[in-house]
Amino acid sequence: MQTLWDYRYAQRTQRMKGSAIRELLKFSERKDIISFAGGMPAPEIFPIGEFREACDKALREHGADCLQYGSTDGYLPLREMIAHQSTRYGINVTAENILPTSGSQQALDLIGRIFINPGDRILVESPTYLGAIQAWNAYGAEFIPVPFDQDGMDTKKLEDSLRAGIKFIYVLPNFQNPTGVTLSYERRLHLIELADNYGVPIIEDDPYGQLRYEGEHLPAVVVLDSQTRSQETCYSGNVIYLSTFSKTLAPGIRLAWVIAPTEVIQKLILAKQGADLHTSTFNQISTYEVAKGGFLNEHVKLIRKVYRERRDVMLDTLEEHMPPCIKWTHPKGGLFLWATLPTNLDAKVIFNEALEKNVAFVPGAAFFAEGGGHNTMRLNFSNAKPEMINEGIGILAKVIKNHV
Amino acid sequence: MQTLWDYRYAQRTQRMKGSAIRELLKFSERKDIISFAGGMPAPEIFPIGEFREACDKALREHGADCLQYGSTDGYLPLREMIAHQSTRYGINVTAENILPTSGSQQALDLIGRIFINPGDRILVESPTYLGAIQAWNAYGAEFIPVPFDQDGMDTKKLEDSLRAGIKFIYVLPNFQNPTGVTLSYERRLHLIELADNYGVPIIEDDPYGQLRYEGEHLPAVVVLDSQTRSQETCYSGNVIYLSTFSKTLAPGIRLAWVIAPTEVIQKLILAKQGADLHTSTFNQISTYEVAKGGFLNEHVKLIRKVYRERRDVMLDTLEEHMPPCIKWTHPKGGLFLWATLPTNLDAKVIFNEALEKNVAFVPGAAFFAEGGGHNTMRLNFSNAKPEMINEGIGILAKVIKNHV
Repeated sequence: MQTLWDYRYAQRTQRMKGSAIRELLKFSERKDIISFAGGMPAPEIFPIGEFREACDKALREHGADCLQYGSTDGYLPLREMIAHQSTRYGINVTAENILPTSGSQQALDLIGRIFINPGDRILVESPTYLGAIQAWNAYGAEFIPVPFDQDGMDTKKLEDSLRAGIKFIYVLPNFQNPTGVTLSYERRLHLIELADNYGVPIIEDDPYGQLRYEGEHLPAVVVLDSQTRSQETCYSGNVIYLSTFSKTLAPGIRLAWVIAPTEVIQKLILAKQGADLHTSTFNQISTYEVAKGGFLNEHVKLIRKVYRERRDVMLDTLEEHMPPCIKWTHPKGGLFLWATLPTNLDAKVIFNEALEKNVAFVPGAAFFAEGGGHNTMRLNFSNAKPEMINEGIGILAKVIKNHV
Repeated sequence: MQTLWDYRYAQRTQRMKGSAIRELLKFSERKDIISFAGGMPAPEIFPIGEFREACDKALREHGADCLQYGSTDGYLPLREMIAHQSTRYGINVTAENILPTSGSQQALDLIGRIFINPGDRILVESPTYLGAIQAWNAYGAEFIPVPFDQDGMDTKKLEDSLRAGIKFIYVLPNFQNPTGVTLSYERRLHLIELADNYGVPIIEDDPYGQLRYEGEHLPAVVVLDSQTRSQETCYSGNVIYLSTFSKTLAPGIRLAWVIAPTEVIQKLILAKQGADLHTSTFNQISTYEVAKGGFLNEHVKLIRKVYRERRDVMLDTLEEHMPPCIKWTHPKGGLFLWATLPTNLDAKVIFNEALEKNVAFVPGAAFFAEGGGHNTMRLNFSNAKPEMINEGIGILAKVIKNHV
């Protein structure tokens, strides 16, 4: 249908691209598909009973507050709980440093909105999280990719890019989406040192930090940055830290948070007023009721147990079935691993053939801000049950073997 | 605290202003205040019991779907219900024309994102809804105000502005926020005729349309526009229509919708992917459970009864207490009325003095996109109980009498 709107789109609308992942989620909804595509948690262990109780309690005890307009800055007990939890991990902040957002995607959008002028250069891992590219594309960002290996962003190759005039560095240090790779301790220190030398601030995106299945917890970049600056390790403010309840409780509730200097929080609040007024009061109160009193920590232990098993099944089945020319990462946590095909193979060809046999994954090219990665694939291991992982990887291996 | 972020804000951040209303909501939260400030529904009649049942049912029957990631385009049964309701009011659309958003504020933001280039001119009523100004300021819009009287936007004065190259017209035809004024039937037709002559599309924002307390329902602009174009009155697509559950069920749930041509809906979905991935699945499913099967229509009757009484009390008390030099509108629906002081009086002065006596309202200047209105005030009558309205208006009248 032709309408008067057809010729009225803004320039930025031309830059908007659909997320390959969102498109693929449609396949994931088909019951006959074994999906390694989305980044979806295991539905079997959602705390449904706890949410039922919490919603009922929230509406019984705070009914009108749940349903009324709330303030943009968010529900104070929730912010205090997040501050308290963060302090346990060495991020010494108060509720004034915390803004609840409608998922981490909104945090990325609001950050883009207050910081990015068209043409601004953002330093990103290559590959990096697709949602960040999508959010910041709308503000006209340019992405400067930094090479990446099994220890994360290669900080030795960072310095040249830092001289190019960078607005900020975007890093996912723990079990990165899409690769599952963790930034090593030494590189975290090196990253902080270089960022400090060049006066460039950092966005640390950490949705999976609590989902570690082996090895020692590494301090967050925001913690190390603060430690290098003061003996009291008070929050330095040069690293903005993002996390979420999507992977530890439930993504459907759309609740995440930003940790930032109070001045930045105030600007983010202004931006959020214009974007959606505030995040649902009901969701904030009921999620607080679910998370408080130790449940969140207990539940994360269950998630770790379930996802560790699924990761192990996927690693074992890959080892068993894949031809030797296929390589993959061995993530120590998170939701994803990353496989690399021989360079003469296109992951999209494999994708189409696998889909015919009812197996889905995400071709890796989408995660490269500036192109490349045609022979890579992201495999999610959190969503499918072990027997399905076993079957799905078997099918995938057969499809690949036809080509190598 | 000084941080590396201080000098890194985008140009658009300079244009972001806090909403006077959001600031005033802080006063509204004080229990000792009689507030005519926010646009808050009456909490006494929130359907808390219905939400308790619906949330429980949603989690019991769709638990994992409520808590899992959902598609950006929204929960299909909800979209079908909205399409069905819209068709009853003459807006002949299907679920493909509907996008659920995280409140109408997000709808305004997404519209700005896909349509507004910096410097684009938007034609607005003067005064107009503050949230639209706030949302579109972020995209660099310029606002062309059209004079306004007791019949709404003065369409006789529209033509000159339409020649100035307008991206779209923004209109709130029913019980407008902030004035409570309704666009007359004749002017609706005139608006459509002129917009068609100049090929300029319209955004119709209609949060209060169902809350009419007297007089006959007037067809929406979108309906009249479609009628003038086809005998079958199928949706013409030149008017994008916004509405919300915030005023008929509960604002804390953050659920509203856009009706637009499918091509525009597809662009809005792309923009929403980058903004917040999707609106909470849980809120969509539970709101659908509350609204379906006729409850929404019954509940709206209760709201009309309660708000009509409050409006009448406010009109009566104004009549009784205010000096004759004060004028105010007589809204036939909605949540607000609009008072005008003598031009030598500043509503901000009255605001400060009234606040000392624990009465709050919104000084009207905030609603003028391009300045003016220093002697106007917006009075909300939905939130305070009748006896409080009586007392509050009495206090306000005393404060004003000291100045006239």
